[in-house]
Amino acid sequence: MKHILTAVVQNRPGVLARIVGVISGRGYNIETLNVAPTHDPAVSKMTLVLPGDDHVLEQVLRQLDKLIDVIRISDVTRRNHVNREMILVEVSTRDGRRGDIIELTALFSAQVVGVREHSITLQMVGDENTVEDFLRLLAPHTILDLSRSGTIVVERGE
Amino acid sequence: MKHILTAVVQNRPGVLARIVGVISGRGYNIETLNVAPTHDPAVSKMTLVLPGDDHVLEQVLRQLDKLIDVIRISDVTRRNHVNREMILVEVSTRDGRRGDIIELTALFSAQVVGVREHSITLQMVGDENTVEDFLRLLAPHTILDLSRSGTIVVERGE
Repeated sequence: MKHILTAVVQNRPGVLARIVGVISGRGYNIETLNVAPTHDPAVSKMTLVLPGDDHVLEQVLRQLDKLIDVIRISDVTRRNHVNREMILVEVSTRDGRRGDIIELTALFSAQVVGVREHSITLQMVGDENTVEDFLRLLAPHTILDLSRSGTIVVERGE
Repeated sequence: MKHILTAVVQNRPGVLARIVGVISGRGYNIETLNVAPTHDPAVSKMTLVLPGDDHVLEQVLRQLDKLIDVIRISDVTRRNHVNREMILVEVSTRDGRRGDIIELTALFSAQVVGVREHSITLQMVGDENTVEDFLRLLAPHTILDLSRSGTIVVERGE
């Protein structure tokens, strides 16, 4: 089972290193992670996707919660939330199947952000499953470059 | 000056911790960072945005390049590339200015991904400057939650 964690932390050098250190110190692999400042520049928000069982994750959460620069850490997996991932992908069109790629672009409401003689670059946003589906359908093509943002999340308010 | 680095790394536990350790060991603050697997699940790609002067950054790059799990690290700042960031933002509509928020949504081609009685949640994608402009124009409103993916990048191929 995959868990989605969000952490609100002080925006100070070394905070990310400590958080990542706690997680990998437990032998946990981090599937995706991102961190960026919030509207308050003193505060950053991180989103982490971690595979693994509930019991071990609970221990990791407790340990992270004790770190001095962690303001709030939450497992949002079972809470009401919106999650999205963005990808940029450059696909080769050398094999003459540009039409198929354009079809997928339309089906997934992706956007063409670059066209070169032998490649096309797409931007696509979706929830976790939609991004996985899109990448699966692109897989028969030659992927030249792929950059994934990892999952980001906002919880649904009142 | 801000630098955008991309790193292609082995997808193993501890790799992220070592990379972040090298950077923060030099007192460098990381503005945004994200990491996710590529189309080859054995390989992950990271994008980092680091403020700071060219000289120190060069030393950091050299040190990172020596790490055993780093396959390739590049400073793409001055190269031909496409960069994008995605944000999810929940804005309060309690102050009765929902019309203004909807106007900004249209101007920036953002998407409404959630509407509640007293808030609206938007998804927006743009390059670094466009995301900054959008957040500046939203600032007079009450931001309830904000999650940023950090910058992701693909270089322009041939």
